Amino acid sequence: MRGNTFGKIFRIHTYGESHGQGIGVVVDGCPAGYPLDTGIIQVELDRRRPGQSALTTDRQEADQVQILSGIYEGITTGTPIHLYIPNKDARSGDYNTLNALFRPSHADYTWQQKFGIRDPRGGGRSSARETAARVAAGAVARSILTHEGVDILSWVTQVGPITLHHQPDLVTRSQIDAHLVRCPDPIIAHKMSTYISELKDAGDSTGGVIMTRVTGCPSGWGEPVFDKLHADLGKAILSINACKGFEVGSGFAGTTLRGSEHNDPFVQNESGVRTKTNNSGGIQGGISNGMPIEFKAAFKPVATIRKAQDTIDNEGHNVQFSGTGRHDPCVVPRAVPIVESMTALVLVDHFLRQKSSHR
Amino acid sequence: MRGNTFGKIFRIHTYGESHGQGIGVVVDGCPAGYPLDTGIIQVELDRRRPGQSALTTDRQEADQVQILSGIYEGITTGTPIHLYIPNKDARSGDYNTLNALFRPSHADYTWQQKFGIRDPRGGGRSSARETAARVAAGAVARSILTHEGVDILSWVTQVGPITLHHQPDLVTRSQIDAHLVRCPDPIIAHKMSTYISELKDAGDSTGGVIMTRVTGCPSGWGEPVFDKLHADLGKAILSINACKGFEVGSGFAGTTLRGSEHNDPFVQNESGVRTKTNNSGGIQGGISNGMPIEFKAAFKPVATIRKAQDTIDNEGHNVQFSGTGRHDPCVVPRAVPIVESMTALVLVDHFLRQKSSHR
Amino acid sequence: MRGNTFGKIFRIHTYGESHGQGIGVVVDGCPAGYPLDTGIIQVELDRRRPGQSALTTDRQEADQVQILSGIYEGITTGTPIHLYIPNKDARSGDYNTLNALFRPSHADYTWQQKFGIRDPRGGGRSSARETAARVAAGAVARSILTHEGVDILSWVTQVGPITLHHQPDLVTRSQIDAHLVRCPDPIIAHKMSTYISELKDAGDSTGGVIMTRVTGCPSGWGEPVFDKLHADLGKAILSINACKGFEVGSGFAGTTLRGSEHNDPFVQNESGVRTKTNNSGGIQGGISNGMPIEFKAAFKPVATIRKAQDTIDNEGHNVQFSGTGRHDPCVVPRAVPIVESMTALVLVDHFLRQKSSHR
Amino acid sequence: MRGNTFGKIFRIHTYGESHGQGIGVVVDGCPAGYPLDTGIIQVELDRRRPGQSALTTDRQEADQVQILSGIYEGITTGTPIHLYIPNKDARSGDYNTLNALFRPSHADYTWQQKFGIRDPRGGGRSSARETAARVAAGAVARSILTHEGVDILSWVTQVGPITLHHQPDLVTRSQIDAHLVRCPDPIIAHKMSTYISELKDAGDSTGGVIMTRVTGCPSGWGEPVFDKLHADLGKAILSINACKGFEVGSGFAGTTLRGSEHNDPFVQNESGVRTKTNNSGGIQGGISNGMPIEFKAAFKPVATIRKAQDTIDNEGHNVQFSGTGRHDPCVVPRAVPIVESMTALVLVDHFLRQKSSHR
Repeated sequence: MRGNTFGKIFRIHTYGESHGQGIGVVVDGCPAGYPLDTGIIQVELDRRRPGQSALTTDRQEADQVQILSGIYEGITTGTPIHLYIPNKDARSGDYNTLNALFRPSHADYTWQQKFGIRDPRGGGRSSARETAARVAAGAVARSILTHEGVDILSWVTQVGPITLHHQPDLVTRSQIDAHLVRCPDPIIAHKMSTYISELKDAGDSTGGVIMTRVTGCPSGWGEPVFDKLHADLGKAILSINACKGFEVGSGFAGTTLRGSEHNDPFVQNESGVRTKTNNSGGIQGGISNGMPIEFKAAFKPVATIRKAQDTIDNEGHNVQFSGTGRHDPCVVPRAVPIVESMTALVLVDHFLRQKSSHR
Repeated sequence: MRGNTFGKIFRIHTYGESHGQGIGVVVDGCPAGYPLDTGIIQVELDRRRPGQSALTTDRQEADQVQILSGIYEGITTGTPIHLYIPNKDARSGDYNTLNALFRPSHADYTWQQKFGIRDPRGGGRSSARETAARVAAGAVARSILTHEGVDILSWVTQVGPITLHHQPDLVTRSQIDAHLVRCPDPIIAHKMSTYISELKDAGDSTGGVIMTRVTGCPSGWGEPVFDKLHADLGKAILSINACKGFEVGSGFAGTTLRGSEHNDPFVQNESGVRTKTNNSGGIQGGISNGMPIEFKAAFKPVATIRKAQDTIDNEGHNVQFSGTGRHDPCVVPRAVPIVESMTALVLVDHFLRQKSSHR
Repeated sequence: MRGNTFGKIFRIHTYGESHGQGIGVVVDGCPAGYPLDTGIIQVELDRRRPGQSALTTDRQEADQVQILSGIYEGITTGTPIHLYIPNKDARSGDYNTLNALFRPSHADYTWQQKFGIRDPRGGGRSSARETAARVAAGAVARSILTHEGVDILSWVTQVGPITLHHQPDLVTRSQIDAHLVRCPDPIIAHKMSTYISELKDAGDSTGGVIMTRVTGCPSGWGEPVFDKLHADLGKAILSINACKGFEVGSGFAGTTLRGSEHNDPFVQNESGVRTKTNNSGGIQGGISNGMPIEFKAAFKPVATIRKAQDTIDNEGHNVQFSGTGRHDPCVVPRAVPIVESMTALVLVDHFLRQKSSHR
Repeated sequence: MRGNTFGKIFRIHTYGESHGQGIGVVVDGCPAGYPLDTGIIQVELDRRRPGQSALTTDRQEADQVQILSGIYEGITTGTPIHLYIPNKDARSGDYNTLNALFRPSHADYTWQQKFGIRDPRGGGRSSARETAARVAAGAVARSILTHEGVDILSWVTQVGPITLHHQPDLVTRSQIDAHLVRCPDPIIAHKMSTYISELKDAGDSTGGVIMTRVTGCPSGWGEPVFDKLHADLGKAILSINACKGFEVGSGFAGTTLRGSEHNDPFVQNESGVRTKTNNSGGIQGGISNGMPIEFKAAFKPVATIRKAQDTIDNEGHNVQFSGTGRHDPCVVPRAVPIVESMTALVLVDHFLRQKSSHR
């Protein structure tokens, strides 16, 4: 009943604290018979891991994943796949004072209220370190989707006030990964990284937006009325640390259009049924329609900053707090593989759910 | 595995098609010992039902709910509560031609692709009529939350290009329900209804935005890491027909702020711990912090319009389609009680989930 | 979290009290594309319904089922199928005194302790009337299994001390239904019904045993390590009112054998892999092996008897109680279709679960 | 959808193969605020582990458990508790030939049929080694139950034809653990161990029966109509390797009694409501009634024996097979802590489920 499981058929169970022994995930429901190796998982973990550059936290974590079960001679066996990532650079000492106060816009206060106890070392399980387990599991999901012809790409379209206006169908993974900020336009990417560096120097932080585009998804995935494909995607993305907004297809901007402008006319061509426009974002009535799935996610500015802020301590006294730990000034570059991973987890689950839909 | 169930402890199971015998919901997991009568449920159904005014569909449905189980002498017994709403004004004849073509931006095509069969009468289960069951179940949830001191208010803040700028803490239910468009400012409400009427006359439709504010929610509700309170709210709201976007607290606008501007400083006052600002929207780390919960939802323009549109028929031939059924030109006024209902369902479930969180 | 749902993919949600408006079930997860009509369901309900003969309760219930959703032109659509059975012969007056005392070996006391309230009319939801909903849903499950070549037969092998020794592979449905006691041997069946009549006259009751045999089940169904096929069958059968024991294959008797006697040697013949013996009861390691699935279920004597018994009232005073309601003196004849139904529900669920097991 | 998760609120997710890196379990839903240390878990693992005596397999496993998350300063934090048990004495070489044939009454054939692939090293995940994870998780469950006043005792009442007739209310844990066969009567225990030794020498095996008695369980636990307490117990116990039967209270023997003999009269005494007899086994209508919970489980003879047996290989040719691995000749002594663990897992889950039952 606690919220550490995600998915219905392809289910993941994550565990672990930021500065405990390690973190990990049990991937249950992965079908037997797919090839899987550690390398595929490690590639995605390396895209997420801290210490990649001046844009990210200084924490150094190799994030070396171990596969402890579920694979025999490189093939999935249908049994649970346990992926374990030991913590190496755990410095609980950095966080000792955090036991005594509630950091503003952090989860310290609410976890204490919920459980009556919290592991204060690095935020315990509320730390973004938890997302490494999502990325590891997401790499398994993505690997299966690749065999089914589905491809997922996410990239940064906004950092603070700097925005990318770009045709989503032209973006490639090599463009995205060419710059550490993970924006596919090199000029905008440079502006974004400059802005992030300035904020880091100022002891401050910023937010941003990530765009996702899925191609190759067949029609028929999604489970109305409650588990609509975009509703499950929305939940998955909103569950990522710092995410405050989600929109699919035309999203908030589409609310100002008229129906005659917004509707996507069907056309039949040689490759099958398509729509002329894609305001639906590839999903109609909660079910994929075979067009690219497109959505955006908003991430708030990182809560931990070096600038002094007002807050209260455990006894309710007014105190000041300045972050001294190792934190990113902007989460969106490292959130890109996390968004892709959660997307993959939703899609592979709906792929499997669809298998029992009809005779 | 199909998506007709919502919730973990307080679980609802909905069924029924737009033009079948009726629709309904089995509410399971409602705790024993709460008073409940049909009147409370009927009030909310009346707020959602069609045929209320010129702004909405002409379909006439009394939407008279029947409680068929789970109540003894006016008190919940802990057994499943079955709420049934017979269909009265079902006119399958209106929809006969729909069997043969796929309406643009409707769920006809995707349901056919998913199941290999669809009930074409009024869209079958993809019809917005399905949401009456959500409202009936939501009224039960809301009734329990009221006993726990939690209050939920939703209202329209945007219709097409017309936007309300208003202090959310000043809005009352009587203001909202004073105008059929459910915008609490009478001048803006009038503009909105005029705009909707114009579009109706033009055979077109529009979208809009709904704001929600929850007061009285204690701290500690929400289940990280995946079932964060705003993630579950996001899924709930995004699962409503025509919803394309969700944002909590500062949302998309918050991405341009700096951390020093966005963080909500904690303060201790006589009534307990509060935050000076509420960019977090009452939720931090996925758990309620005791402040008002605030979020917005975007609804696209209604897909069925009288204007002729291009589409294809079941054999893939190009055809034209003009909507002749009974449809709202804008969903947001009637979506207000639906948004409130889904909010209530999420909150009552987390209220019950929290009961097993600690010793 | 309450226990009114059964199954993972093919899920049923039941509701209703013995003397409320009616009882019913929402069948969710039934695949689209299977023919289904009311007649198939009514046949099974008629086998279970009360008032069939002097062996059963005098309560008269037509148990006319209504299909309220999920079917279009006689074909399943993949949406929830709601089966509703109105209560006709509800005589709450019979039960008024039951509000004030706890009947021995009934659920009155424990339901009161659990929920702090109970619907005393006919035992409320603890009544065996609840099982009509299982039979209705089971008929849908059975219908799908029939299309997949699976056949389920249950029959009575014991009533009180009278036991049938019979080759299970020779039993047919017509033999079973030839006698109201549902024992396929006419001589034993006659002894059993005589015994039941004697007990009824004496104001007493008896228990019995039901055997089940499933043929045509392919290998590969069942989900170790926890949802082993016989574990799910065991739970399903033990959840039927009055069931106190379950054994699969050799069961309790097999514990005295040696491994060399008990093991089932594999043989390959023209029709595939088989085992020479079937002590495993068709299930090995929790997965069906293609042999007939065989298990037995024990039912205790009916708790309600006319003979006076000691018990306590709601205030804890010693009182005497004599049953005056309408009750069966032995449940096993009417439990036969219930056991078959629960078996069908387990098997159809595992049929669907197996669809996502491998590439 | 695979069956590696057990429980609803207190949920365990197990993973691992007999001769992989290790096995383990993620315990989710354990309430915050309970003390927990490794020692409590290790005690139970030591009771289950192989290599304890001549009665059990020769495999030597220290079964040293590691707690990798979920505990802070010795107290549960409400986050997932990961318990990991590395495999030490893994000798895959012993099992190489098993890849090529299907052992009689083992899970080799059915796992191959289910997944199209199997890990043949020691039976992979179908090995009884998997139950170590259950015992580790069960120790956490038991620890919480102890704080709630609930005590669980299991012991051996039958090995092959040798049966214990004993008052269950006189049995103590020290009596049970005094003899490796885990029968509390020293004379019967000696007979049992002699019988097991003889069978081992003869290259054969035997089965047996385990009795369980739970005291201190309050009334009100259990969730009708499907998740009745004894139904969930039955599933839990039947999911243990080699278990073929389950009966609660009077069980199969009770079927021959009359209702007037079988009913348990309620009495009120100074300590509250009790029943004079306990044919119900402490559970009525699927809900605990405050009396001791009593049930029995039947275990078949171990399938792996040294005696030569007929079987088939992967290509369907007739071959002979003699077990050469390290196996117990009788599982029941080591199954005692496993039965207790599964019992604890069911009870702690229903303890938590009951928390949301009424206002």
